[in-house]
Amino acid sequence: MELLLNHRTVRQYLEKDIDVSLLNSILESGIRASNTGNMQLYSIIVTRDEENKNLLAPFHFNQSMVREAPVVLTICYDINRFYKWCDINGTQTDFNNLLWLLTGCIDVSLVSQNICVAAENSGLGICYLGTVLYNAPEISNILNLPKGVIPLTTISIGYPAQLPDQVDRLPLSSVVHYENYKDYSSENISIGYSGKEGLLSSKQFIAENKKENLAQVFTEVRYKAEDSRYFSQKLCKMLVEQGFSFEV
Amino acid sequence: MELLLNHRTVRQYLEKDIDVSLLNSILESGIRASNTGNMQLYSIIVTRDEENKNLLAPFHFNQSMVREAPVVLTICYDINRFYKWCDINGTQTDFNNLLWLLTGCIDVSLVSQNICVAAENSGLGICYLGTVLYNAPEISNILNLPKGVIPLTTISIGYPAQLPDQVDRLPLSSVVHYENYKDYSSENISIGYSGKEGLLSSKQFIAENKKENLAQVFTEVRYKAEDSRYFSQKLCKMLVEQGFSFEV
Repeated sequence: MELLLNHRTVRQYLEKDIDVSLLNSILESGIRASNTGNMQLYSIIVTRDEENKNLLAPFHFNQSMVREAPVVLTICYDINRFYKWCDINGTQTDFNNLLWLLTGCIDVSLVSQNICVAAENSGLGICYLGTVLYNAPEISNILNLPKGVIPLTTISIGYPAQLPDQVDRLPLSSVVHYENYKDYSSENISIGYSGKEGLLSSKQFIAENKKENLAQVFTEVRYKAEDSRYFSQKLCKMLVEQGFSFEV
Repeated sequence: MELLLNHRTVRQYLEKDIDVSLLNSILESGIRASNTGNMQLYSIIVTRDEENKNLLAPFHFNQSMVREAPVVLTICYDINRFYKWCDINGTQTDFNNLLWLLTGCIDVSLVSQNICVAAENSGLGICYLGTVLYNAPEISNILNLPKGVIPLTTISIGYPAQLPDQVDRLPLSSVVHYENYKDYSSENISIGYSGKEGLLSSKQFIAENKKENLAQVFTEVRYKAEDSRYFSQKLCKMLVEQGFSFEV
């Protein structure tokens, strides 16, 4: 539990490789995570080759971790393998829809988090790269993913060059509800976010971006509505082209 | 790592409550998981009350864990809290689309898995209930979830009444690809699934369900195409009614 409580994202790594047998143990720990119906609708792509990292990097917006980490993992929802098994056995089902994409996304994420916990337990540091969802079509091309294999998480792993400070979290009382969801009053919100807003790093963030408050940095600089819509449409298009249905 | 490798799903619990301070430590471990932009777009609903468990149980298809576990957690993608914070600060963004639903689903799942690892590390056993996605509208009503709060994972937690045998997994070589995805030949598939197909439990499963092979049990009994489509449309409808877009 201490390991989990001490988690910090590590973006800078030593130039030291990860032993193959250690990586295998970490991946074995990953696939022991719970998964739906024990169908294991996922695949893990391991990138260690420098050339392949260089191909991936631009589609992760050149975040340094992709080129500098010894290992980059791309973990995918994979119905291709299961469908092939069904074909051989003269049967079929339909996992090409939102319900199963979310189910698969949960299973992929549980594998991902087990991998991260196992890696940290072995003295490694990890960083999740949400950019994989922004550029899933291009990343799929690079990794040679067939139809029905959708990259959902990317994790860079390596020996930490330094241990960064731990970042803040909202107080537990702001994210946990007992028995029923108690909707937030403006006062609750202000109290819950006051710790975050009061941090020196938040104030620097606001000043650097020439904004009035921290929320504006999130909505007007980091996660703008137009970017959100653009990249969501791009992702939907890829999925629909692969036969996914989002029909009501 | 041994803890992760020893994971098994626990569906039967002792009649023994979970101490509040232990539960809080587990939840604190949960929210230390990585999350996108440290926005914590999630909420955790804790169900301990018997009456509320009885309300939830039918929508988890009366799986016994809901009534019998001392604690049931429903973990939700929550943009309601973040949007309220943005409102107070005179700004807004748009997280009502597939990109952010998947992003939130990953963050929810990382919290969920940290909670499970912390719980198992404390001698507790856990079970994921995928049924939450099948009946998200009804479960949302019971938990009083406002617009923008979507239940994605449910976990039952308690002291194990017994430790079940560990279930199989596909060999690591069947789910891991190095550098590029190597698509599966029929032979690869047959080799990869042979262990699973050879299990006594699989043979019993086939016989009980009067099917010819294991794949048919999955596709014609457990996860039928028509159920998949029905429940996916139901989920899409709920999301579209809440303003989510799946537009291409």
